[in-house]
Amino acid sequence: MSTDTAYNELLTHLKRVHYLGSVASLVGWDEQVNLPPDSADQRAEQNAVLAELSHEAATNSRIGTLLTELEQAAINLSTDQQVVVREARKEYDRATKLPADYVREKAIQGSVGYHAWAKARAASDFASYIPVLEKNIKLAKQEAGYLGWGDRSYDYMIDKHDPGMTAAVITKLFSELKTELVPLVRQITSSKVKPRSDKLTGFPVDGQFKFLREVTEKLGFNYRRGRIDVSLHPFCSGNGADIRMTTRFREDEPLGALFGSIHETGHGLYEQGLPLAHHATALGQAAGMGVHESQSRMWENQVGRSRAFWAFFEPRFREEFPAQTSDVTSDELYLAVNKVSPTLIRVEADEITYNLHIILRFEIEQKLFAGTLAVKDLPQAWNQSAEELLGLTPPDDRMGVLQDVHWSDGAFGYFPSYCLGNMIAAQLWYHALELRPDLTADFARGDFSWLLKWLQTNVHAQGKRHDALALTKRITGQELSPQPLLRYLRERYLPLYCA
Amino acid sequence: MSTDTAYNELLTHLKRVHYLGSVASLVGWDEQVNLPPDSADQRAEQNAVLAELSHEAATNSRIGTLLTELEQAAINLSTDQQVVVREARKEYDRATKLPADYVREKAIQGSVGYHAWAKARAASDFASYIPVLEKNIKLAKQEAGYLGWGDRSYDYMIDKHDPGMTAAVITKLFSELKTELVPLVRQITSSKVKPRSDKLTGFPVDGQFKFLREVTEKLGFNYRRGRIDVSLHPFCSGNGADIRMTTRFREDEPLGALFGSIHETGHGLYEQGLPLAHHATALGQAAGMGVHESQSRMWENQVGRSRAFWAFFEPRFREEFPAQTSDVTSDELYLAVNKVSPTLIRVEADEITYNLHIILRFEIEQKLFAGTLAVKDLPQAWNQSAEELLGLTPPDDRMGVLQDVHWSDGAFGYFPSYCLGNMIAAQLWYHALELRPDLTADFARGDFSWLLKWLQTNVHAQGKRHDALALTKRITGQELSPQPLLRYLRERYLPLYCA
Repeated sequence: MSTDTAYNELLTHLKRVHYLGSVASLVGWDEQVNLPPDSADQRAEQNAVLAELSHEAATNSRIGTLLTELEQAAINLSTDQQVVVREARKEYDRATKLPADYVREKAIQGSVGYHAWAKARAASDFASYIPVLEKNIKLAKQEAGYLGWGDRSYDYMIDKHDPGMTAAVITKLFSELKTELVPLVRQITSSKVKPRSDKLTGFPVDGQFKFLREVTEKLGFNYRRGRIDVSLHPFCSGNGADIRMTTRFREDEPLGALFGSIHETGHGLYEQGLPLAHHATALGQAAGMGVHESQSRMWENQVGRSRAFWAFFEPRFREEFPAQTSDVTSDELYLAVNKVSPTLIRVEADEITYNLHIILRFEIEQKLFAGTLAVKDLPQAWNQSAEELLGLTPPDDRMGVLQDVHWSDGAFGYFPSYCLGNMIAAQLWYHALELRPDLTADFARGDFSWLLKWLQTNVHAQGKRHDALALTKRITGQELSPQPLLRYLRERYLPLYCA
Repeated sequence: MSTDTAYNELLTHLKRVHYLGSVASLVGWDEQVNLPPDSADQRAEQNAVLAELSHEAATNSRIGTLLTELEQAAINLSTDQQVVVREARKEYDRATKLPADYVREKAIQGSVGYHAWAKARAASDFASYIPVLEKNIKLAKQEAGYLGWGDRSYDYMIDKHDPGMTAAVITKLFSELKTELVPLVRQITSSKVKPRSDKLTGFPVDGQFKFLREVTEKLGFNYRRGRIDVSLHPFCSGNGADIRMTTRFREDEPLGALFGSIHETGHGLYEQGLPLAHHATALGQAAGMGVHESQSRMWENQVGRSRAFWAFFEPRFREEFPAQTSDVTSDELYLAVNKVSPTLIRVEADEITYNLHIILRFEIEQKLFAGTLAVKDLPQAWNQSAEELLGLTPPDDRMGVLQDVHWSDGAFGYFPSYCLGNMIAAQLWYHALELRPDLTADFARGDFSWLLKWLQTNVHAQGKRHDALALTKRITGQELSPQPLLRYLRERYLPLYCA
C-alpha cells in the first residue's frame, strides 16, 4: 500500500472516531441542558452504547496496522502528517494498551468513587473516603505502568491533560509564583478598600441573557456555529463546527453569569479557531488543557476585567439595567468586577487566590504520588496548606479536602492546568501588547478583532502541533514564566486596593 | 443453545438497535430545535456515521441465525415472545433483503427527488417532476419485489406504515366515507354561520406557551419524561422514556399552536403508555401509524374541540389573555375552535375536509400503482378530484399536485393512515362513551384521567401485539367502520352550522 493510501485510510478511521465522539458530546450536552428529570435511565443506556461503539472504532486493529506502516514510512510524510500520526499513535495506545479487566475495574471504581465522595462530603466524613482515594491512586499508577511511564505515574497523569508538561517544570513555576503571590494577596486583603458587590441585586434573567449574548458576540463568538443555554454547571462542549456553551443565572449576582460566559466564550473562540477541515485529526484539535484555559482566562480576565472593556460596555450595562445600577458608581462597579476575597472554596475564588488553591492541590497530589504523604494524613496536610497559602483554616473537611469531585474518579494531574493557563494567558497578553500598544484603546471602542485574529493565527490555527511550553516559547520568544502573571495581577489590583 | 439463551441474545441485539435508533432520533430532534445555522455540514456527517452503525447493528448476521433458531423452536416461546420474534423477523428482512445497490440508489434518489420537488413546486412546473415520480414508483415496486410482495406493491407500501392494512380494506372504508362526507361538507359550507377566527389576534408567545403547557399537562402528558420546544415544523419524536414534542407560534393564530400541541400530546401519551421495559421490542412499540394517529386525533378533536373541554379551559384562557378575549364571546370562541372551511392545501385543512384530502391522495396512489393512471396525467386527475371532493380547483400545480413533499422521496401509502386514524379515534371514542357515559362531565371538571387510563390499558399497553383492524375489533367488538367518524362529525358540526 502506498503511504498516501495508508494515510487516507487512517483519516477515514479518525473521522469515524471523531464524529462518534462529537455525537457523544452532543448527547452529553443534551443531558445537562434538556434531559427530562426521569429520563436518566434511558440516557445511561444510550451513553453505554455510544461508549461501546466509540471504543470499538478507536481500537479497530486496522488503525494499529496503518500506524505501524506510516511510522516505518515517516520519511515520506509531511511535517503535518507526522503530527497526525504521532498523536493518533498516542490515542491508539491509550485505547488499546489497557487490559479489558483494568478498564472495567476503573469504570466501576469511577462510579463507586463518585458516590462515596458525595456521601463523605455531605457528612464531612473523610475516613470513609480513604479506601477510595487509595484505590484511585493505585489504579492511576497501574495505568501509567501499562502505558510505559514506569514510576513516573504523576507525570503521566499530568501529560494526559497537558501533553509535554511535567511535575518538575510545574514545581519550579509554582514555587516562584507562590513566593510572590502570598504576600501580594496579604497586601490586598489588608487594604481598607472593600468591593460592594452586594449592591448589585435584582437583575432579571432575560436582561442578563441579552446583555451577555451581546458581549460574547462582540468578542467574536460565532453564533452561526454555536449557542449558549442554561445548565446547572456551566461548561463549553462540542467543537468549532457546533459549540455548545452554557451558563447559569442568579438575579443578585449578575457578574457571575457574565464572567462565566466570557470564560466559556474564550474556550469557544479557541475551538472555533481550530481549522474546520482538520477537526478529526491533531491538526484541528486543542493543544491541551493549559492552552485551552489560557484562552478562557485571557478573555475573562485580561480582557473582561479591564478598564477599557468597561469603558465600552458600562454604558450598555446601565442602559439595560437602569434601575439596578442607578445607585452604583463606576468605581464601585469596576471594583465589584475585580473583587478579591480569599475563600476556602476553589470554585468561589477570585482570579488571584484561585492560583493558590491550585498550588495547594498540586503540592498535595505530588506528595501522594511520591508516597511522602499518606492518604489518611491528607486532611491535616490540606488544612496546614490552606492556612499557609490562604490564611484560612477549613472548619471541617467538607469545606476542605472533600470539596472537589475530581479525585473521586481518579482525575489527578488535572488541577495544575488551571494555573498554567493563567500564566500562559498573561505571557501571551503582554506579548500582544508589545505588538499592538493600542490594544486597550481598541477595546474601549468595542473592537476586539485584533486580539482574536492574533490568537487565531498564533494559537488556534496551530492545533496540536506544539505543546504548551513550545507554543508559548514560539509565540513570545521566552520560556513560560510566572512573572507576566504576577506583573498582570499587580498592575490590575494594586492601584485598586493599595493606591 | 437453549431457546431461552437464544431469546436473550436476540434481546441484546434488539436493545443495541433500539438505543442507537433513539440516539439518532435525539440528534434529529436537536437538528430541528437547536442546530446553529452553519453547523449543518457536521450534522450530516454525524447522521451518516449513525446511519452506518445502525445499519451494521440491524443487519448483524447473528440476528438472522437467532431468528431462524427461535422460529424453529416457536413451540417453546410464549405468545408475547412469538410477537417479538415475528416483528424482529420483519425488521431483519427489511434491513437485509434489499441489495446494497438498491439501497444506495434509493438513498441518492431520495435526495435528488427532494430537491427536484422543491424546485418544481417553487416554479409550479410539474413536467420537470415527472421522471422523479416515475422512478420513485419503479423503485417502490422493486422494493416490494425484493421483500416477497410480488405485484402487491401498493399493499406493501401501505403495510410499511400500517401493518396488516390493505388497499382493498381502505377502498371499502374510504368510499363509504366519501359518499356521506361530501354532502355533509356541502351542507356545512353553505351555512350562513361563519367562524370569526380573525378576532383572535395579538396573543403573546409566552402566554401561549404557558397555557398550552398547562393544558397538555392536565391531559396527562408526563413532563418528567418529556418536553416541548419550538421548531419550524411541529413533530413528536423520541419514545416514552424521553418524548420530545415541538410546536410553533403565531401571535394571530393562538389556536394553531394549542391544537398542534394537543395533537402531538396525543402521540406523546401513546408513546408514554407503551411499556417502558419493552421499548426495544415489539411489545413496547406502537402498532402502526393509523393507531398512532388515532391517539393524536382523539385528544385533538374528540377531546380538545368539545364543549366540555372548553367549559373547563375557557376561563383559564380568558384569565391568561384578558385583553385579547374581551371582545370575543364564548360562542365565537367555540366556533373558531371548530372552524370548517375547505382549502386547497391539506396541511391547512379543518378536521372534516382533511379526510377528503386523504381520500384524493389514496385514490390517486392506487391508480398510479395499478398503472391505470400515468404520471403525466396526474395534474388533471388531481384537479378533477379536488373539484369533486372539495369543490375547489387548484389555480396551479403548486396549490395542487405539487403541494406535498411525501412522494418526492417515495413515501407512498403513508397518507391513508391519517384518515384511518380519524376513523379509529371516533370508533374508540363512542365505545369509551358507552363504558363511561359521564366522560364529558369529567372533562368539564378538568379530569381526563379515565380516558387516558382506558387508552393506556386497551391501546398503549398492547404494543404491536395487534394490528389496527384487530385492535379496533378487540376493543369495540366491531369491525373498523367510517360510521362512528361520520356520526361524530355530524354531532359536532351540524348543531353549530346548521341548527
